[in-house]
Amino acid sequence: MKILGMDTSSRACSVAVVEDDCLICEFVINNKKTHSQKLMPMIETMLNMSDLSIEDMDAIAVSVGPGSFTGLRISMATAKAISHVNNIPILAVNALESLAGNMDLCDKKIYPILDAQRTQVYTAKYEYKNDELVELEGMDVKEIDDLIEIIKNSGEECIVLGEAVSKYEDKLSEVENIHIPAVSHNVTKAASVCAVALAKYKRGEGVHSCYDVNPIYIRKSQAEVQYEEKMKKLEAQKSAENK
Amino acid sequence: MKILGMDTSSRACSVAVVEDDCLICEFVINNKKTHSQKLMPMIETMLNMSDLSIEDMDAIAVSVGPGSFTGLRISMATAKAISHVNNIPILAVNALESLAGNMDLCDKKIYPILDAQRTQVYTAKYEYKNDELVELEGMDVKEIDDLIEIIKNSGEECIVLGEAVSKYEDKLSEVENIHIPAVSHNVTKAASVCAVALAKYKRGEGVHSCYDVNPIYIRKSQAEVQYEEKMKKLEAQKSAENK
Repeated sequence: MKILGMDTSSRACSVAVVEDDCLICEFVINNKKTHSQKLMPMIETMLNMSDLSIEDMDAIAVSVGPGSFTGLRISMATAKAISHVNNIPILAVNALESLAGNMDLCDKKIYPILDAQRTQVYTAKYEYKNDELVELEGMDVKEIDDLIEIIKNSGEECIVLGEAVSKYEDKLSEVENIHIPAVSHNVTKAASVCAVALAKYKRGEGVHSCYDVNPIYIRKSQAEVQYEEKMKKLEAQKSAENK
Repeated sequence: MKILGMDTSSRACSVAVVEDDCLICEFVINNKKTHSQKLMPMIETMLNMSDLSIEDMDAIAVSVGPGSFTGLRISMATAKAISHVNNIPILAVNALESLAGNMDLCDKKIYPILDAQRTQVYTAKYEYKNDELVELEGMDVKEIDDLIEIIKNSGEECIVLGEAVSKYEDKLSEVENIHIPAVSHNVTKAASVCAVALAKYKRGEGVHSCYDVNPIYIRKSQAEVQYEEKMKKLEAQKSAENK
């Protein structure tokens, strides 16, 4: 079974193909957010150089978020289009879960963090139990200082990884029980999306059609928040005028 | 400091660029050994799509083996050429060490294995101590059955990873204290070459010029073995004739 994986949930744009127990190819570009320009050329280049075509794929694995609003929609739209045209299922993977998958077989607790703007991060807590990735705490938006306090007080040996690590590296590296992985592990990777998707698929989880899968945004976009505030103001003005 | 990493020591052909604490790009193709055709186009495509050029690089990290004889020479020749033209150092990384680097911050013992033909593997033993990769046993060629017996008798929780895992998966998966990582971690990756090279560079280790770095073959190639046998036979014939 060949799976094409993609992740555009953060700054890294990443694509990969996994076949059963073998990684066939992977391509990651993590310099700036130009995912809408790069995602399709990256897929095409990678498949061509691996002597594969899009028709060879049996499923699409996609990171559904949380993460960048626009980023998530780019890979989601691409995954849905390929799924629809080739009539193959979409395997949905949480972006935090696939980041945790970078630390395969690790014995420490794992906190992936993705930048949620201001001083907040998207995070969740995972660990490997009997060689399987298990979610200990579901995804949430947390103040970075609150998260650091929670980890410090837990006394547990923890790995904190993900794109937001570089933003808060000074604070994180001060805490004794926080371990930050090497550069190779700190980026969302499509090979990890495929690996987590494959493990879930074997348990019958996360399998969707192109019609019933959607991004996980967790919170509303800034545009939605501003629109709602504007609507409330107009409503208040109206009712004041009517009095 | 920007490092261009490459690894052609096994079936996977892999290139990456790391800058300080950030993975900028990585490209892995692991379908067949056509490294001499693919290495340069992969580097060119990856750098172009990442808005980088070869002149931006400050060092070349290369996997020096053990591994495929021809494979090692392809990336070594390429690394030496780029190093010579651009006057930048080569950071040499053992292929087993960079494979172990895939399991960053893991608490188990790590045995990378690469196929050494017949029923043998290239292997070494590593662990992470204080978040740094430490070599516990130097590289060696071992019968796979001997290695499995050693791990079984040690009673230690061990990770066995690398290209040779799929060849011996049935035997390996029978052993209770052997853990095999997900597909995303079982391939030699240039990002891990860069990560290990960067850690060694900070300790002042593994820095070479293009004139003083060579592949690590461990044992002689089949051609050399056959040549020596032939020479011995001729020698014996000669001395018999002279009697």
